[in-house]
Amino acid sequence: MIRVGIIGSTGYAGQELVRILLGHPQAQIVWYGSRTYAGQDYAQVYRNMFRLVDEKCMAEDMDALAAEADVIFTATPQGLCASLVNEKILADTKIVDISADFRLKDVAVYEKWYGIEHKAPQYIGEAVYGLCEVNRDKIPGARIVANPGCYTTCSILTLYPLVKAGLIDPDTIIIDAKSGTSGAGRGAKVPNLFCEVNENMKAYGVATHRHTPEIEEQLGYAAGRPITLSFTPHLVPMNRGILATCYASLKEGVDAAAVRGAYEACYGDEQFIRLLPEGSIPETRWVEGSNFVDIGFVIDERTRRVIAIGAIDNLVKGAAGQAVQNMNLLFGLDEAEGLRLVPMFP
Amino acid sequence: MIRVGIIGSTGYAGQELVRILLGHPQAQIVWYGSRTYAGQDYAQVYRNMFRLVDEKCMAEDMDALAAEADVIFTATPQGLCASLVNEKILADTKIVDISADFRLKDVAVYEKWYGIEHKAPQYIGEAVYGLCEVNRDKIPGARIVANPGCYTTCSILTLYPLVKAGLIDPDTIIIDAKSGTSGAGRGAKVPNLFCEVNENMKAYGVATHRHTPEIEEQLGYAAGRPITLSFTPHLVPMNRGILATCYASLKEGVDAAAVRGAYEACYGDEQFIRLLPEGSIPETRWVEGSNFVDIGFVIDERTRRVIAIGAIDNLVKGAAGQAVQNMNLLFGLDEAEGLRLVPMFP
Amino acid sequence: MIRVGIIGSTGYAGQELVRILLGHPQAQIVWYGSRTYAGQDYAQVYRNMFRLVDEKCMAEDMDALAAEADVIFTATPQGLCASLVNEKILADTKIVDISADFRLKDVAVYEKWYGIEHKAPQYIGEAVYGLCEVNRDKIPGARIVANPGCYTTCSILTLYPLVKAGLIDPDTIIIDAKSGTSGAGRGAKVPNLFCEVNENMKAYGVATHRHTPEIEEQLGYAAGRPITLSFTPHLVPMNRGILATCYASLKEGVDAAAVRGAYEACYGDEQFIRLLPEGSIPETRWVEGSNFVDIGFVIDERTRRVIAIGAIDNLVKGAAGQAVQNMNLLFGLDEAEGLRLVPMFP
Amino acid sequence: MIRVGIIGSTGYAGQELVRILLGHPQAQIVWYGSRTYAGQDYAQVYRNMFRLVDEKCMAEDMDALAAEADVIFTATPQGLCASLVNEKILADTKIVDISADFRLKDVAVYEKWYGIEHKAPQYIGEAVYGLCEVNRDKIPGARIVANPGCYTTCSILTLYPLVKAGLIDPDTIIIDAKSGTSGAGRGAKVPNLFCEVNENMKAYGVATHRHTPEIEEQLGYAAGRPITLSFTPHLVPMNRGILATCYASLKEGVDAAAVRGAYEACYGDEQFIRLLPEGSIPETRWVEGSNFVDIGFVIDERTRRVIAIGAIDNLVKGAAGQAVQNMNLLFGLDEAEGLRLVPMFP
Repeated sequence: MIRVGIIGSTGYAGQELVRILLGHPQAQIVWYGSRTYAGQDYAQVYRNMFRLVDEKCMAEDMDALAAEADVIFTATPQGLCASLVNEKILADTKIVDISADFRLKDVAVYEKWYGIEHKAPQYIGEAVYGLCEVNRDKIPGARIVANPGCYTTCSILTLYPLVKAGLIDPDTIIIDAKSGTSGAGRGAKVPNLFCEVNENMKAYGVATHRHTPEIEEQLGYAAGRPITLSFTPHLVPMNRGILATCYASLKEGVDAAAVRGAYEACYGDEQFIRLLPEGSIPETRWVEGSNFVDIGFVIDERTRRVIAIGAIDNLVKGAAGQAVQNMNLLFGLDEAEGLRLVPMFP
Repeated sequence: MIRVGIIGSTGYAGQELVRILLGHPQAQIVWYGSRTYAGQDYAQVYRNMFRLVDEKCMAEDMDALAAEADVIFTATPQGLCASLVNEKILADTKIVDISADFRLKDVAVYEKWYGIEHKAPQYIGEAVYGLCEVNRDKIPGARIVANPGCYTTCSILTLYPLVKAGLIDPDTIIIDAKSGTSGAGRGAKVPNLFCEVNENMKAYGVATHRHTPEIEEQLGYAAGRPITLSFTPHLVPMNRGILATCYASLKEGVDAAAVRGAYEACYGDEQFIRLLPEGSIPETRWVEGSNFVDIGFVIDERTRRVIAIGAIDNLVKGAAGQAVQNMNLLFGLDEAEGLRLVPMFP
Repeated sequence: MIRVGIIGSTGYAGQELVRILLGHPQAQIVWYGSRTYAGQDYAQVYRNMFRLVDEKCMAEDMDALAAEADVIFTATPQGLCASLVNEKILADTKIVDISADFRLKDVAVYEKWYGIEHKAPQYIGEAVYGLCEVNRDKIPGARIVANPGCYTTCSILTLYPLVKAGLIDPDTIIIDAKSGTSGAGRGAKVPNLFCEVNENMKAYGVATHRHTPEIEEQLGYAAGRPITLSFTPHLVPMNRGILATCYASLKEGVDAAAVRGAYEACYGDEQFIRLLPEGSIPETRWVEGSNFVDIGFVIDERTRRVIAIGAIDNLVKGAAGQAVQNMNLLFGLDEAEGLRLVPMFP
Repeated sequence: MIRVGIIGSTGYAGQELVRILLGHPQAQIVWYGSRTYAGQDYAQVYRNMFRLVDEKCMAEDMDALAAEADVIFTATPQGLCASLVNEKILADTKIVDISADFRLKDVAVYEKWYGIEHKAPQYIGEAVYGLCEVNRDKIPGARIVANPGCYTTCSILTLYPLVKAGLIDPDTIIIDAKSGTSGAGRGAKVPNLFCEVNENMKAYGVATHRHTPEIEEQLGYAAGRPITLSFTPHLVPMNRGILATCYASLKEGVDAAAVRGAYEACYGDEQFIRLLPEGSIPETRWVEGSNFVDIGFVIDERTRRVIAIGAIDNLVKGAAGQAVQNMNLLFGLDEAEGLRLVPMFP
């Protein structure tokens, strides 16, 4: 039985970890960390957990936690995980960081986009970017897994095969992404109030969103060279789900069969990636509550562009689900253990 | 041209006042009060007002405001209006208080239900309860108009004719009310976040909600004796609207014709109250954005109860619209001036 | 492995059965019945099931189905199940009827409220009303289980202990219920369009809703005499969830301890009923996706009424989940098999 | 007083026309046309109009209608307007066609994208494309005004100044648009049911949507040459609003000042177009219920693209409001008459 500690268990991603791990046959949560709610019953913070979780929220005590847990999930604001990690901790436990601290290999890029100093740059090199379908082989031996962002998971997986196979011109990539509001977190802010989000559609972080360099870095590996692209996130009046509508110019001669072939070559055996049949376009409702990534595409012969569309549940494959997938890989379990979640509709 | 000052102009009710008054041919807003946003452009707080409102938000200066304004609307937290009002102010201007400070005639009841000391009990007596359809005659001469609450406006108007005509047993009244989330205000609180309200239905303030004594007092006047009733508010994942489902036992012999007759006797000439034809039940969507109160009822012969249902827009008839209606009465204007708002659907 | 057939598998309740049964270790769906979509891939009707369900929808063939299945769920319009059942069918298989055909013991009451002739009144007597927490002992031997309605499950379970213990006056019961829109089914009707339901709150079926006699019958058993009560359903702009706000006058001397005691006596050992601690009020979000019933109450000393509130997911405990619970009882399995669903939030 | 007839008055756009025209001081609706509801009270179809509209819905009688009305709005399915118009009609009345029949100048393009034969190609030439801010001068003398589509109004107005001033490469234009669900109409279809739209985000009509050639034609006029672009519409779980996120590569040397200058040159005096200050991005909530177009932009120096974003209310500026604006121009009224609608929030 893997003993799991969660730092930040009372945010939305943390709570989704709890939901998923309660159904995981080989994991047990031993630490419900929460600065805000320390000392309170977890089930009082999230009433859905009444009679399912009896534990109280724990204040921060990294040493005690590392001693108790085989793996720690950090579902925390940027910078916190980097400030907590050290050799002693890493000797005792493994870290799956759901924040962005170890996703970018270039510390200067991190500090520029996030506007904070990185407190543990010495661990950036060894941290593995935990996009399981791409880096599966590197995860088992890692001490730190950098769990990918929600927008990035959806965007990278949707475009990766096309970039890798050289079917599109990477400099023409435009990603127009839409997210449910749980992605904005549980902080009490006016812009996230019901009446501000409901009956509204808006873009935000235009040309400045922090997930941009993460997508560029990963797709750059696929391309074999640096990539600069446009990424625009939007806020949608719904709880969960990310839809990434991705545009790119096709290279000469590339047709639908080549595009489909590239997807199948990369994802043919993947259990969590569903390449939709021709004519089907992903929708967020069909993946809600599950670890699936649904991908579909259309070739527009008029403009010679491909429009590739991906859909995930931002809290599952975009956060907690992928974190558990990484945990399964770290501990040599079946990768899908605890993650055979059937999408819930409506 | 009536010069209007608004204290609390950046709350939802305050902003709705702005929306309505911008279309009022005989009123002009001269003071956009806001503690939180003092010094900022009003149109930066509410982007819908861009190019419609050029003014900045003003800090509190009651004397200056009273000197400039013919009428002041206080769309503020409980207790504030009472703390601001005095003889000098009332010599200079009129007050339409959208908070609860002057709604209850018994200061002890106020202090018990609101849990705060009343700072100006000497004005409670003269304040007129501004439920226009009931107290129309008393409003013109008032110095202070207590604008009724949202739930209360809907509940009282729905039940008033039945109580007044003695058709129901007042001790059996149960009001089960449902409100859109704008009623909870624009404060940054976790329970009002999009993801907390969306896809949820809940009751709150069960048996303790502050609108209870206000309904009891007003219906008590209609009954000619004190009334105790049950009132349960619920929060609905929508922006606007209140639906009050009211139950009461019919007195012997009372039939549908008698009930309809009572409504017609009270509201036959009212322009803002629409008594729906038999078989039609009010829905909040049909009054959204307007000052209408829609009322319908069903007689249940099996239980000998009447189920009377009322619907309003909580920000219009339940707050800003009724406040303007009171202003119109105070200044001898056509009562509907600026309020001929066609409900917007969908 | 129990072989399951579903008639009406492409309605919302039918699809929820599929979702739940896919995670049930001892059941296998062998028949995806659907008049509307016969011959089409099930996963094309519900894209969430892509790669999870490979089967096609089947037209109606009751004999073939009965031969193949150990149990048939009928998630169909009223009247269909009664028209299909006969001795041959019942010799081959068991029926869990999710429609209303076998819920009411008095055929005249059925025909009056539903407005259709009952085609198989001879089986009404033996059918067991499948409210597991109340009729657990009678279900195992049944040939036909009448799965309770969604509103009724929530309403009856909320009030049952109070009626049974004689703590309230049954003639004063008023149930004001609110439901998510999945309860209205997947039929293409204007009133169920997004723009008609969104941003709206309405009552419907006032004093005429068909779940009324079902609640009255079951609570009548608890009371030991016939009961007449008021039941008013409302439509809420959300997908799932039912909240039942129930009012009743307390008998003299009954206090909170007595009420809590009655609930604990009935439900102390129930795994799917969560009696909330004092001060907690059920909300639909905390049970979404699960088989839980959350119950809370407030004593209003001013009116001497109890306000008891229940919350369920209408598609789970109100339909598919309870149907699977009944299946588990029919086949001697652990009652919670396949139903340990953690509520999903947000 | 202008006498107005509406064909298709019971669709969402038709009803919005009614809402707006009820507040128009110089127009009077004399004909509420509706095939579906002919003979029924209009206020029974739309309960918001109770006591505001007493008329009944009228069946189709083009000759009678033309004789009665000074102007006819056709808010009808594609093809109907073209089938009704003829010399006799045009001698009697003016037509503002809210359908697509007269928007495209090339009948072959119309027939290809719409898949139907054009029944009145002889009038295509004289019809004026009623995008008021662009074609203001041509509208007054027209017999037929082709009211622009919702997506197209938003997309064209957002990009027009940039194309006209030659600041962007037109071949790189990508428009990723998001619409509220009222744009899908009031037809009873499963994909538009509440539970199908709510909590979902999807693209549709990818690379095939009929508004594409309309945008291309109009922007082609601005560019002085044919343009081919990508346009992808998405459905958002909200009632109203369109957000168009538009991407294009900037020509060398073009900076933010040049872009702002181009917008100001085109729209500096426009009362319905609000160019937001730097740092502000349009959101649909700020224009809801109004005839405004909000436009903002960001220059992304990393990719040398401009991201220009426009927001409208699809039923107002995207349909009924613009139609009334066209009517005002046709009859020599103040262009804003009846259209000084303050956006309603929340």
